[in-house]
Amino acid sequence: MSKELGITPRDENYSEWYNDLVKRSGLADNSVVRGCMVIRPHGYAIWELMQRALDDMFKATGHVNAYFPMLIPKSFLSREAEHVDGFAKECAVVTHHRLKDSENGVIVDPDARLEEELIIRPTSETIIWNSYKNWIQSYRDLPLLINQWANVMRWELRPRLFLRTAEFLWQEGHTAHATYEEAEQESLTILDVYRTFAEDWMAVPVIAGIKSDGEKFAGADHTYTIEAMTQDLRAIQAGTSHHLGQNFAKAFDVTFQNKEGKLEYVYATSWGVSTRLIGTLLMVHSDDRGLVLPPKLAPVQVVIIPIGRGEQREAVLQAADQLAGDLKAQGVRVKVDDREKESPGFKFNDWELKGACVRVEMGPRDLEAGHVITARRDQDEKVNVAVGEAAASIVAQLDAMQVALLDKARAMRDANIHRVDTWDEFAAQFSGEGGGGFVLAHWDGTQETEDRISEMTKATIRCIPQVPLDPADETPGTCVLTGAPSARRVIFAKAY
Amino acid sequence: MSKELGITPRDENYSEWYNDLVKRSGLADNSVVRGCMVIRPHGYAIWELMQRALDDMFKATGHVNAYFPMLIPKSFLSREAEHVDGFAKECAVVTHHRLKDSENGVIVDPDARLEEELIIRPTSETIIWNSYKNWIQSYRDLPLLINQWANVMRWELRPRLFLRTAEFLWQEGHTAHATYEEAEQESLTILDVYRTFAEDWMAVPVIAGIKSDGEKFAGADHTYTIEAMTQDLRAIQAGTSHHLGQNFAKAFDVTFQNKEGKLEYVYATSWGVSTRLIGTLLMVHSDDRGLVLPPKLAPVQVVIIPIGRGEQREAVLQAADQLAGDLKAQGVRVKVDDREKESPGFKFNDWELKGACVRVEMGPRDLEAGHVITARRDQDEKVNVAVGEAAASIVAQLDAMQVALLDKARAMRDANIHRVDTWDEFAAQFSGEGGGGFVLAHWDGTQETEDRISEMTKATIRCIPQVPLDPADETPGTCVLTGAPSARRVIFAKAY
Repeated sequence: MSKELGITPRDENYSEWYNDLVKRSGLADNSVVRGCMVIRPHGYAIWELMQRALDDMFKATGHVNAYFPMLIPKSFLSREAEHVDGFAKECAVVTHHRLKDSENGVIVDPDARLEEELIIRPTSETIIWNSYKNWIQSYRDLPLLINQWANVMRWELRPRLFLRTAEFLWQEGHTAHATYEEAEQESLTILDVYRTFAEDWMAVPVIAGIKSDGEKFAGADHTYTIEAMTQDLRAIQAGTSHHLGQNFAKAFDVTFQNKEGKLEYVYATSWGVSTRLIGTLLMVHSDDRGLVLPPKLAPVQVVIIPIGRGEQREAVLQAADQLAGDLKAQGVRVKVDDREKESPGFKFNDWELKGACVRVEMGPRDLEAGHVITARRDQDEKVNVAVGEAAASIVAQLDAMQVALLDKARAMRDANIHRVDTWDEFAAQFSGEGGGGFVLAHWDGTQETEDRISEMTKATIRCIPQVPLDPADETPGTCVLTGAPSARRVIFAKAY
Repeated sequence: MSKELGITPRDENYSEWYNDLVKRSGLADNSVVRGCMVIRPHGYAIWELMQRALDDMFKATGHVNAYFPMLIPKSFLSREAEHVDGFAKECAVVTHHRLKDSENGVIVDPDARLEEELIIRPTSETIIWNSYKNWIQSYRDLPLLINQWANVMRWELRPRLFLRTAEFLWQEGHTAHATYEEAEQESLTILDVYRTFAEDWMAVPVIAGIKSDGEKFAGADHTYTIEAMTQDLRAIQAGTSHHLGQNFAKAFDVTFQNKEGKLEYVYATSWGVSTRLIGTLLMVHSDDRGLVLPPKLAPVQVVIIPIGRGEQREAVLQAADQLAGDLKAQGVRVKVDDREKESPGFKFNDWELKGACVRVEMGPRDLEAGHVITARRDQDEKVNVAVGEAAASIVAQLDAMQVALLDKARAMRDANIHRVDTWDEFAAQFSGEGGGGFVLAHWDGTQETEDRISEMTKATIRCIPQVPLDPADETPGTCVLTGAPSARRVIFAKAY
């Protein structure tokens, strides 16, 4: 089946499965521009649902939206030393502001060179803190809780649709606070928003934790993360929340008068999730037949496929529209697939590919018998439902599917978390081509050891869990590589 | 009053009034990056309300959203001859993809020069039609009705906040059709969406019409527009809808097999409105005290200002929260301004500046007397309202204000539409520093005459109205400049 549809099965080649899935289901295409993607309507519809839910959560926690310029003066990047190191090697540089005609066609006008080059934002800390300097004078101006929905650009050498693209869409929160403690609380509040969104909306279980210094954001004091597990047993970082300390305030000289009348540097956080969440969603739930989407984020939650030709068609269509109307009235995203030239079998496959959560088959004989046939995308059985109870049953199926996907993903993840105490076991766990799951192991806390482990196994420290998965994980031990003392286990995995 | 707030009165200097208004009310700031702006939370909140309303209207007319790359290969622009002429002179050019450290600090890495330069989209016809080539094979793939919310960049020499900035936010629709007639219908459908949005949401009366060839979009067959009148009696183009004919399909070789099995080029439209709508809104309604916003687009529709100190404060605050709750339950965007350090007078001015539509003053004596005081932003009188009827009264006041603003703007505009038949009258109408209103005059239909009139008076043809303002406007006459025959009157104005 999947071969016919052009999707490589997961166990044949997981990476090709992913690419086939994204393209065949109509989520996104590669663009002619290296590393950039076209997000097609079906993919963008998922993003819109994500945006709406996240935006509501940000607003419920006191944030407002704004918009800052996408071009950043080159000199701004350099103001924060770690920041420029982190982003200078992968940024798009604007050097001219005009084209002109020439004998060789349209060329860049050499007379229109900019005095200072501009960078397309890879992230907006610098341009935003340059504004905050004008907005913050006193403790009364704090906290400043601002979010931005925007496109950003990082010149990725190995792009992959949604997971790692040169241009991507995201939200970036940038907040300013009077105290370290308040900024810390903010970064944790957002970490919890991200965790809640991943679990309640995406049905993706995540482990929330803190990054090691080697993996933190360039310019942060420390970084919190949520990490999910893919079906090929790798980690995928789904969102990060950074406590920036006073680093950017110092770089942009942003001070405020505190309650005691003294000047102090402002404390900051930044945090973001991106269209990478769509890649995460696919990597966790989808199968060889196509997309499996959690109902809360499915552009088409229910597809009704009327069956029957000629005289019967009109009656079936009418019943389909009736059911669709009932579902819409309950806020369900429903579509009647009344294409005349396509067979029911084609439509079944097409909607499995596109990830409709519940399929309703409706034929003249079914209607005569007083029922319709329903099929949940994540189950193999079909279920007959009385026409009068169809809408209620379908709504219940959607709710059940949302829960079932989370449970299934959690079971998959939990079955692939290993506690390992010797280097041989550790290396064996990551020796294959695939992932290797999450390995909870002791680490001596040094950058050097982290780097050596990464070189040898390609596994990196994904996070130090905020809440231990098992209390015993916080018992001291000895580093799996060096044997030096370790305070607690941390999570290693190969990562996307 | 307005001097204290730092807003130059309109009749002293309209242009400075506008700049003061935008900055003082907290809508936007200039950025360090030339021609770019920072849209502050209050300004962005207006944009979010506009987006939501427009997006709903686009979806109700069958459109879906997608996202295309912001970088366009230089060669793409050149494919459509008029298009490149229209945009080449004002575009940001990306030439490199990396910075590096040097003795002189961080510099552009000369080894990271792109093989082909990339342009930050000034508009997306070319990159989108390059994708449509892959998506369209048969008439069954049509129509394609896609919209995109995005940032674009045009290197403006004389930027003005919201009205004309190097980077701005907009939506751009790009549709593909099997026939000329269907594309024409689409461009008119959108023109009507724009007109409806301007009138019903922005309370801005507009004249919908067709552009002369001199003013049409670079690459269009013809362009429709909606034109509003500002308080200084100029025209402002608020939205455009282009019928592109087969121009871009030919440039990108996009053909389809029609029902007869023959290959044909696809017909196209494109259409857009931008953050310029916010500038339009201000130019039409606001006054020397600050923003006057139509309730449907006001981030804060109602502000409640509790008055009283000490023991009384608690009771007043409770009553304020009660009313706020009642209003919220009816979907009203309401804020209780309970700042302790600011006086009521300061708050009155502050919320007039920020454009709250209805102000509610609530003091202990008012409450004892069983009423609150309400004041509509567009009226001078205060009105006492019984506490039990306050919520209903305020909702009614908001509805009435929405209508009143449109009526007032329409009366202002209609009083400044002139029919002129001699060149002396025409020139006199546009001789002042200010606008001159809309002048309906006969024109011989040539580009040469249009150019000469523009040189002499700075007035341009804004549009040929879709529906004549007066049937007599469609009576033939003679050109106001050349005396040559003219089929009908067209609208001239000085424009933003």
